[in-house]
Amino acid sequence: MTSREVLPLAPETFHLFDTTLRDGAQQEGLRLSVADKLRIAGLLDELGVSFIEGGWPGANPNDTAFFAAARDQLQLRSAHLVAFGSTRRAGGSAATDPLTQALLDAGTEYVCIVAKSHDRHVTDALRTTLEENLAMVQDTVSHLVSQGRHVFVDCEHFFDGYRSNPGYALDVVRTAAEAGAEVVVLCDTNGGMLPSQMGDVVSAAGAIGVDLGIHCHNDTGCAVANSLAAVEAGVMHVQGTINGYGERTGNADLTTVIGNLQLKFGWPLLSERQLASLTRTSHAVAEITNQAPHARQPYVGHSSFAHKAGLHASAIKVDPDLYQHIDPMVVGNDMRMLISDMSGRANIQIKGEQLGFDLSDRELAARVTEAVKQREAAGYSYEAADASFELLLRSQLGELEAPFEISSWRVLTEHRPGEAEGETYSEATVKLVAQDPETGPKRLAVVGEGNGPVDALDDALTQALAPVFSQVERFKLLDYRVRIMETGGTDAVTRTLIDMSDGSRTWTTVGVGGNVIESSWEALADAYLHGLVNGYGTHQPKQ
Amino acid sequence: MTSREVLPLAPETFHLFDTTLRDGAQQEGLRLSVADKLRIAGLLDELGVSFIEGGWPGANPNDTAFFAAARDQLQLRSAHLVAFGSTRRAGGSAATDPLTQALLDAGTEYVCIVAKSHDRHVTDALRTTLEENLAMVQDTVSHLVSQGRHVFVDCEHFFDGYRSNPGYALDVVRTAAEAGAEVVVLCDTNGGMLPSQMGDVVSAAGAIGVDLGIHCHNDTGCAVANSLAAVEAGVMHVQGTINGYGERTGNADLTTVIGNLQLKFGWPLLSERQLASLTRTSHAVAEITNQAPHARQPYVGHSSFAHKAGLHASAIKVDPDLYQHIDPMVVGNDMRMLISDMSGRANIQIKGEQLGFDLSDRELAARVTEAVKQREAAGYSYEAADASFELLLRSQLGELEAPFEISSWRVLTEHRPGEAEGETYSEATVKLVAQDPETGPKRLAVVGEGNGPVDALDDALTQALAPVFSQVERFKLLDYRVRIMETGGTDAVTRTLIDMSDGSRTWTTVGVGGNVIESSWEALADAYLHGLVNGYGTHQPKQ
Repeated sequence: MTSREVLPLAPETFHLFDTTLRDGAQQEGLRLSVADKLRIAGLLDELGVSFIEGGWPGANPNDTAFFAAARDQLQLRSAHLVAFGSTRRAGGSAATDPLTQALLDAGTEYVCIVAKSHDRHVTDALRTTLEENLAMVQDTVSHLVSQGRHVFVDCEHFFDGYRSNPGYALDVVRTAAEAGAEVVVLCDTNGGMLPSQMGDVVSAAGAIGVDLGIHCHNDTGCAVANSLAAVEAGVMHVQGTINGYGERTGNADLTTVIGNLQLKFGWPLLSERQLASLTRTSHAVAEITNQAPHARQPYVGHSSFAHKAGLHASAIKVDPDLYQHIDPMVVGNDMRMLISDMSGRANIQIKGEQLGFDLSDRELAARVTEAVKQREAAGYSYEAADASFELLLRSQLGELEAPFEISSWRVLTEHRPGEAEGETYSEATVKLVAQDPETGPKRLAVVGEGNGPVDALDDALTQALAPVFSQVERFKLLDYRVRIMETGGTDAVTRTLIDMSDGSRTWTTVGVGGNVIESSWEALADAYLHGLVNGYGTHQPKQ
Repeated sequence: MTSREVLPLAPETFHLFDTTLRDGAQQEGLRLSVADKLRIAGLLDELGVSFIEGGWPGANPNDTAFFAAARDQLQLRSAHLVAFGSTRRAGGSAATDPLTQALLDAGTEYVCIVAKSHDRHVTDALRTTLEENLAMVQDTVSHLVSQGRHVFVDCEHFFDGYRSNPGYALDVVRTAAEAGAEVVVLCDTNGGMLPSQMGDVVSAAGAIGVDLGIHCHNDTGCAVANSLAAVEAGVMHVQGTINGYGERTGNADLTTVIGNLQLKFGWPLLSERQLASLTRTSHAVAEITNQAPHARQPYVGHSSFAHKAGLHASAIKVDPDLYQHIDPMVVGNDMRMLISDMSGRANIQIKGEQLGFDLSDRELAARVTEAVKQREAAGYSYEAADASFELLLRSQLGELEAPFEISSWRVLTEHRPGEAEGETYSEATVKLVAQDPETGPKRLAVVGEGNGPVDALDDALTQALAPVFSQVERFKLLDYRVRIMETGGTDAVTRTLIDMSDGSRTWTTVGVGGNVIESSWEALADAYLHGLVNGYGTHQPKQ
């Protein structure tokens, strides 16, 4: 890549700072449980980011609980967990500020605090003096440093502040640096900047002589480009979120930033193996947060290396480099010429091993890969549905002895005479044959009720299986998520993901069908099947 | 905005060139009928783009049909329709090339042809010589000019070509210019460029002395930023698509480009009224193409000015400029503090007038606006569902005399014993009272069947209404689209849009419910209601 020559060298220590769990969680409609946060933190660590900002302890009870849980359960291999907070209250003291203390109580080596750097935000929103704001920065940073913390400072609204009062904005940077902040982060909080405006402002802050970071929002569609422009102007710390989640238009998409820094700048920030997990990480975070993946997302999107087979089909096959800006395999994505999917045999072997299956036999691995490709072409997605993938593996290996067989099912949804508009009632009938380990096959037919068709089917399935497998009474439908794919009329395909739990484990299945009831039914039946096959809900789960 | 000072002035004639109908249609899963294309072209003209690239006549029968239909039916107020084609075949002559002739037959004043400008694409994909490729450019452009056409030339793979062989890439630009091309468009076809790399390349091409354009793809997440960098380097023509539709990661999003050029550069490209239609245009195109709108899309996204009401809620109310990079009203969007929506009374008055209702009375308009806001907060969307909006208006005006009233309905979906997995049968029962204009109320109860629950409900509704309103036999369910919103468990809200036709008109309704059956039923019943109220399917439709 000739472009590398004109771009800066990677700083010796460059920070990939992820704030999916903190600023990303500000996105409308995005809610993260403590368990979600722990899972995402594990994925970020595997991906190879330097820092994981976990939340605001003290300000948000869920975040306080996350840091407590992280201390016990989270073993990060290389990333550092960061607790977020703010400068102390105006007129107080950091040493006695309860939120500053909560930040210390989170027990992380690294903390990041937000400071106001826009004069009008100090006077009009914080309602204090410019001098007091500087004192708050000085006092909070030096107190945290005195308690042994590495401190980063986010200068909120820095670029708008620099436009309003450049001297004051730079005073905040200088104060933070002199108080011991290791990185001062310039934040385009309102997201209104353009790339060509970044260089001068970053250079002005750089003249202070402190390591700088950048934090961009995407309100002009330039969050990634603005981050790169700041890097070109010398910052050594980039903040972003997986898939660009965040308030309003979101934050800089860290997956795109990583792709550009590693593959366009040529900076070896991640190992080859880590970079190849970029697509999988992006999709797994989307599934955990229950956000529809963006098919056109750079580097990691499902469509991002998809070519309509046209005049150039043969030319693409001869030399794909003529039609792709990078080899998609290096980010774990794949070129697709038609409706063909997934990441190939090697990935499936790795995933199978993780679940405890030996797929080293090439022929077997090829057969499983083919089966997965066929199912994915039909709309299945196994990135988050390990339980369904495990059932597919067992089936391909001839190791699936089904404990029950469905004979028929039906579900009725009705609006009864005299009821208010929008009030409906659902009733499901399920008939199945269960294999009683002691007495052999047993035919069962039951009726279930519920708030909607899926609830009613779940109720019926529990009732039908319970006489033979009493452990299903411990199975609980936690959540179900539905996506309509390739919508375009009555033959749209519907995909349902179901999370089920027995109180100690949670497992996820996927179903696909011509309508939401078909797909939900398949995911539901697989969830029961997976739970029974693995002995969940009993005192002696099988391995 | 101080930034305006350091940015270039708007060229006297700046081209906003939309290629949603041509390059945007390359997106995976996006299909456009001739009718869709006509509707989108009308919207683009109202928005105020300079050029609308309609497709590739001759190469694509649907596009040939579009240009024929456009000649009869499309009256553009200010935009110019552009037909797309390619340079003539190697070894032939433009004067006898059938595709060049098809381009002329499209009958547009403006044509845009694609030319290869990357040496290896010429030799390896086109399999001709570098000299013949130049001859093809020269011959095709001069023939089209001799036939009275204004000619633009897209230099395909220009930036990769410039990296591979800068002299040849520039030769293609020069040849096109000398043959009479009015604009030569530099295309980052593979989308691998970064903003800081654009300036030098654009300047090199600019030295040739021809007006330049830019065409970017979003593979590095920088399509908008790259377009702006090219504009800053002097191009006067930007190509893009509404919502960034396009192959792989898509094209530069023209809605974002427009927002940035008009509001950040300060260039008055659109009138205030046109700019205020940006959000509506984006959403309407999303509905017509049946693509899920991207909530975080810059300027026009549903979430793009949404603030979680937190510490700053009161400060935002006092001075929203502190928290927003622009006033969202100028692009027809709105700040949202909670779950509050829509565009206010003025927009509803305009929309009502378009449908033939007088909403000039302030109190009435306020009441309708309040009703719309309540419905939108519950998940309804009227941007594409004019038929439901009209029913809402009639109801608020006390002008809705319902020709039928539903007593009850139910729908059964079942998997019967012995059937293959995935095969289901649906049956619906509908009971209603129809107001026979001659004999008064008539109670009807029928059973319908179908491929899925919505088909079965549609069949039942037709059968139930036909004895009294025979015109419903001409009503045909064209399409239905379902979206799950705010998914997060069993209380997700489902929205269904239904397109219905009587053979000469098509109308769209919206329904919302706790599950797909509830929402589909509401949209379906409203579609019949709207058709009957307006006399569709009869020979004397009411006005």
